[in-house]
Formats: sequence, C-alpha cells, structure tokens
Amino acid sequence: MEFSRLIEADVPVYLQSIPAMHAHFSSFDSLEVTEVGDGNLNFVYLVSNRRQAHETVVLKQAVPYLRVVGESWPLTRHRMDIETAALRYFKALCPAHVPEIYHADSEQSLVIMQRLGEHRILRGALLEGHTYTHVAEHLSGFMARSLFYGSDLFLPADVKKDAVKRFTNSELCKITEDLIFTHPYDDSASNSYNPALPQAEIDRIQRNPPLRAAVGALKYAFMTRAETLLHGDLHVGSVMVSTHETYVIDPEFAFYGPMGFDIGILLANFFLAWYGQDARGGANAETSKNWLLNTSSQCWVGFLAEFLQLWQQHEQAGTGFTGRDLDGASAQVFRDDFMSRLWQDSLGFAGCEMVRRVLGLAKVAEIAGIDNPQIRAGAEIKVLRLAERLLLERTSISNMAQLLEWVQA
Amino acid sequence: MEFSRLIEADVPVYLQSIPAMHAHFSSFDSLEVTEVGDGNLNFVYLVSNRRQAHETVVLKQAVPYLRVVGESWPLTRHRMDIETAALRYFKALCPAHVPEIYHADSEQSLVIMQRLGEHRILRGALLEGHTYTHVAEHLSGFMARSLFYGSDLFLPADVKKDAVKRFTNSELCKITEDLIFTHPYDDSASNSYNPALPQAEIDRIQRNPPLRAAVGALKYAFMTRAETLLHGDLHVGSVMVSTHETYVIDPEFAFYGPMGFDIGILLANFFLAWYGQDARGGANAETSKNWLLNTSSQCWVGFLAEFLQLWQQHEQAGTGFTGRDLDGASAQVFRDDFMSRLWQDSLGFAGCEMVRRVLGLAKVAEIAGIDNPQIRAGAEIKVLRLAERLLLERTSISNMAQLLEWVQA
Repeated sequence: MEFSRLIEADVPVYLQSIPAMHAHFSSFDSLEVTEVGDGNLNFVYLVSNRRQAHETVVLKQAVPYLRVVGESWPLTRHRMDIETAALRYFKALCPAHVPEIYHADSEQSLVIMQRLGEHRILRGALLEGHTYTHVAEHLSGFMARSLFYGSDLFLPADVKKDAVKRFTNSELCKITEDLIFTHPYDDSASNSYNPALPQAEIDRIQRNPPLRAAVGALKYAFMTRAETLLHGDLHVGSVMVSTHETYVIDPEFAFYGPMGFDIGILLANFFLAWYGQDARGGANAETSKNWLLNTSSQCWVGFLAEFLQLWQQHEQAGTGFTGRDLDGASAQVFRDDFMSRLWQDSLGFAGCEMVRRVLGLAKVAEIAGIDNPQIRAGAEIKVLRLAERLLLERTSISNMAQLLEWVQA
Repeated sequence: MEFSRLIEADVPVYLQSIPAMHAHFSSFDSLEVTEVGDGNLNFVYLVSNRRQAHETVVLKQAVPYLRVVGESWPLTRHRMDIETAALRYFKALCPAHVPEIYHADSEQSLVIMQRLGEHRILRGALLEGHTYTHVAEHLSGFMARSLFYGSDLFLPADVKKDAVKRFTNSELCKITEDLIFTHPYDDSASNSYNPALPQAEIDRIQRNPPLRAAVGALKYAFMTRAETLLHGDLHVGSVMVSTHETYVIDPEFAFYGPMGFDIGILLANFFLAWYGQDARGGANAETSKNWLLNTSSQCWVGFLAEFLQLWQQHEQAGTGFTGRDLDGASAQVFRDDFMSRLWQDSLGFAGCEMVRRVLGLAKVAEIAGIDNPQIRAGAEIKVLRLAERLLLERTSISNMAQLLEWVQA
C-alpha cells in the first residue's frame, strides 16, 4: 500500500485493518484519537477506547519532511525503520525501560506501541520542580547496557560491523552535525539569540579558535567513531517517568557513534535544568537543584560501575579485548584508560549540547522559557561559561565531584 | 558461471572468453602463464604472449580460504570485490600510481590488470640495497590524496557514510585485528620467535600493562574510527617501483579506518628495513640507511604539505568542516590540532607494526632473513625498543627529526 499520512480520522480504520490490534481493542467504533506530537519530526497519536479506558496505544508516523520546518526540508521516511529497529533492540537489552512495540509498518512509516499512561516527559516534570528517586539508577543502567552491548568490547567484530551498516542514519546524523556541531558556532541564520545576551558572550564562543577547534574535533568524532549503537538524542525530553518507572523513547537518531555522546547530552540537560531552576528561584528550587546534581552524579557513577561490571563479567567468560592478560594487570589498565577517555569525551559533548541550547535553533524550556530576558541571559551566560570550560579544560576534571563544583561556580 | 579456481592451464581459455582481452592479445594459443603469488591470500598469474612479448597482463584470483594456511581458514571471495572497487577508486584518485584494471569478474573473484613490466616489489629491492629517487614524492602524494578524498573533510556526510558501508571488510579486518593488534602481545600459538631473542625482551612487550593498554586503544581505534578509505596494508611489499615510477598494489585490506594506520605501517616498514641494513652492514648499508631515513622523513613531510594543501583548497571553495571561520583563525587551529593527532596516531600504529613483524606470525625478510640468530636478535631488540617508545612516549615526539633520532638511538 502506498504511503499516506494518516490524519486523526484515519487512525481507527487503519488500526482495525491490523490483526495485532484486535488483541488490544475490543471495538474500533469508539476510539478517541489525539495528536500530541511535540517533537520536530513526526506525528504522534494517542488512541484509546472511550468504552474501555485501559485499551490504549500510541501510534507514531514519520512524514517525508521535517515537521517543525515543513515540506521544504525533506527527510526520507526510512528513519522510522531505524527507530523501530532501535526500539526493538533497546527493548531486548533493557525491557523495563523501553516501551513495547505492538506493530511496525515500514511502508506507512509508522509504529504502534505501548502507551505509557501515568508517565510524564521528564523535561516538563523537572521544569515544575518534580523529582524522581529512581531516574539515575534507571538511566545509568540503560546507558551501561546499551553502550556496552553494542560495542566491540562485547560483539564479535563482524556482527558489530554489520550493525554499523544496518544503523547508518545519514539524514538524522546530518541534523545533529549541523544543529549541534556547526551552526551554533558560525552565526548561522538558523540560530536564535536572546536579545539580552551580550554580543561579547556570543563572540566568546564563536570567535574563539581553540574552542572552535575543540568542537571541530568532537564533530569529527561524532562523524567517524562508530563505537556503539547510541540512542542519539538522549535528552530529558526523550525520557518518560513515573514514581517507580523510567522509559527511554524516541530513538530515531540512533546510529553507531561515540559512547560519550549519549552520556554528555544527558548530563548537559541536567545541568541546563539546574541553571533554569537557579535562575527562576522559588520555594522548591534548592530541592530541585540538589536533586539535579545528585542525579547527574549518580548517572555517571552508576553507569561507570555497571559498564565495568558487564565488561569484566564478559571477559571472565573468554578472552578480553586486548588478548590474554599475561601479567594479570594489563586488562585493568586498559579499562581504566578507556573509561577515562570516555569521561573526557562525555564532558566535551556535554559542552556542545549546552552551547547549542543557548545559541542554536532548538532551545530548552528550562532556559528559553524564562520570561525576563535579563534573568534568562544571566542563566545563559552561566551555561556558556561552563560549556567553554568543558570544551577547553575538560582534561583537567578528574571526577564528578569536581565537575559539580564547576557547575555551581 | 559457478566459481572455480583457475589453474595455469585454464588461464588462456578463460582469457579468450573475455571480449576485453581480445584488445590485449592478438592470439591465445601461445600464452605463457606463470603463477607468482607470494602473498598469503590469492593466486596471481603473469600471462604473456610468447610471440608478442608486449602483450601481457596480470590475473589475480581470490580463493575461498587463506592461501598461506589452507582450506582450514575459510575466507569469502567477496574480498576481491572490495579489492577491485578500491583499485578503481585509487586509480581515479592517483592514476600514475595504481595499475589499470582491464576486467573484473565478481563470480570468479578475479581481476585482470596492467602488468608492471620492469617494476619490482619495493621490499625486495630495498633488501638488495637499491634506492629510488621518487618513492617518497609518489607515496606521500598517494597517501595525501587517498586519505583526504575519502574523508569527512572532503566528502558530503551521506556519501561518506555510504562509502563506509560499501567498504565494510570484516574478514580481512579481522586478520589485522588478530595478527597486528592481539596475537603478538598475548603469546599466541601463531606467533614465532627467534630462539636467540631473550625471553626478557618478549616479556618487556607482552607483560607491560601500559604498553598493552596503548595497543588496546590503537586496536579500538582501528575497529571504530571510520575516517577514510585506507589501503589497509601499505607496507613495502604492496609497492612496486622502477627508476621513475611507483605503483601501489594489493588493496584487498581496504576499509574505512583511521588515517594514521596507512602512514604508520609505511613508516614502520622503512624503519624495519633500516634496522635490517644496520644489522647486515656491508658496503652499501650506509647509503641505504640514509636513503631510508630521508625517504621516511619526506614521506611524512610531503604528505603533510599536500594533505593540508588539498584541504585548504577545498575549504576556500566552500564552507569548512567547522563551519564559517568568523575570526579567520579557527580553521587553521583545527587543522593544526588535526595533523598533530594524526602524527601521534601514525607513530602508535608504526609501533604496532614493528612489534608484530618481530613477535607475530608474518615476518619481514629484512629482519627475519638475517642468517645469524644473534645478529638477528640484536636487530629485533632495537626494533622492539623503538616500538615500545613509540607506543608509550609518542606524545613527546614533536617532529620527524626527533623521530629519526629515536630510530638511530
């Protein structure tokens, strides 16, 4: 069947035509359909049966253009195949933290999946000052498993190389290459700046040769280092939470890239939320800020411990990545060096994410949503200053405690 | 037609069946066929017409196993498609330094190409003390063009990612991963050691945690960093020379990998030849050694100049890799940092190549062919000591002059 973009009225007919949906819905004549896509790329429909409220699914359809811009920015619908494959893969690795897929339709570029009922997008929840006890444990576990099991540290070399081919995702990578690594720095017309942000602060980023060279090296790493299957867009808008559960959604940017990218994006988004709370102030700001620092810290520390545990368990079962360890110390030195490089990478990517959320096209509500332009600029300057330090001096940050001092400096 | 391995007697009949060959041979009843494959992977036939000596071609056929080991080490014949594609690509980039392909037959896993008449394999020529005026200029040009034009510095991002997929070469990469980066270090049964080489010298490499960790990082770089289309096996046995011409052959190991790998392998092979001449001595040794040091130096210096020239020319014609250069200095800082990282990478890979040629399965005649085991061991120790320094201290070598001092130390 030729591709056609579904509108709300089409959804019940479409669902009824899918055999698997008859297990989810007892009838199709009383379905309520609401379009809720707030992302930049796709249409997202919540579907529920008015007669049986527990009968509910999410339908997500990719259209052949960038939704936020329109038909003038074409994108192939193939990205939904990548998203579906990534969802299935991450679901197998981390079943508690990825929604279940009920049906995927490559021709129609859509996927039908588990509706997360009481869960909220983490970004909005953080903005309101909510905190969640288990987020760090859940996200560090997701990152440890997803980053380890896709890598050459675990997979046979040929299997990994096949996975690199399968998850080639040029179009969505190009968005990241442009919007994260290039445009924020070269005064692109697609940027938008808070008018209250002094030009000197923008120049300090854009007319800073060592910083621009550091960002160039991170862009080159993003484009060349096929280390593992990344989520590719692991910010707090790609996480849904409830009191006890955490889900990672929307892996359409998934591709084989450098491990530090997922970690850095996540840390940067916690720091952006921290600067937002800091600028807004208010009764719960301190609680929220403490939670954000603790959660950042536990995300890295938990990730580090679980990743190393998976790695050591795997090597105990066979030969290690560097070959037989004749002196009993070499494998550990390699692992230590590896994690140290990964830490530096993560800090660099965090710096890039922070810069682009202030200077680039896509903002975050925590900062850009601050009504008073001067207060917003104050937060933006702090964000840019931390990003600058991360990009230029990250080799001198040896641990998370020191990083958190820099955040608060 | 089903695959069948050709034997010498089959070759004339096969050639006659190929229309393109009728332009090369005036008759097929007087062809002389000689098998000359001295590599580890393929069968290579020289074919010439006894009646018309200038009518001559080379036919190279891949068989579904590793020739040097036998049918117990299976390899798919697909590698000949990679070799053919790489030959055509390198020929387009560097027409003066790559043989012409006359015919390729994917089903039979063979390629028929230009016979390089008076040219010799560079390794054998060096062993005899010959020197060639133009080798450095030619090889540095080959490396500059091949490493630059395949990279993200030149290609549009999607074209480059497609090329990464097309040149996925898991089987031959696995040979490198095992034989260069793993087995020499973990006392593998496939290694062979000169009995006169003291165990302490072997242990100094194999039971050296920082060195093993450094090699692990280089192996990981080889497996993950898809920077450009490498030759993948650019030692002096893959180069054919005459007084005025230089050809690069045998790119069956071609794949998207780190740029420093090709450079490092080539430099290491010049240094191995230098240690061989040094140990053998004799009338022409000093001339030969000087030539080897000069050629190593000119290979890097010439590469650096030409690569940077190609890069700057390309960026003058459009936007640079890091975006618009608002201050006029950022692009140059990025290029300087880039070349400095590439230099470090190259030295590290050179260290790996030197170790594996002493401890691993595949030796080089310059060292392993020294009859006196003690004299051979003396050269091997010098090779291992330089490799150790390159692996552990390469960030402290800032230029080629300093490297050449280390070689001679």
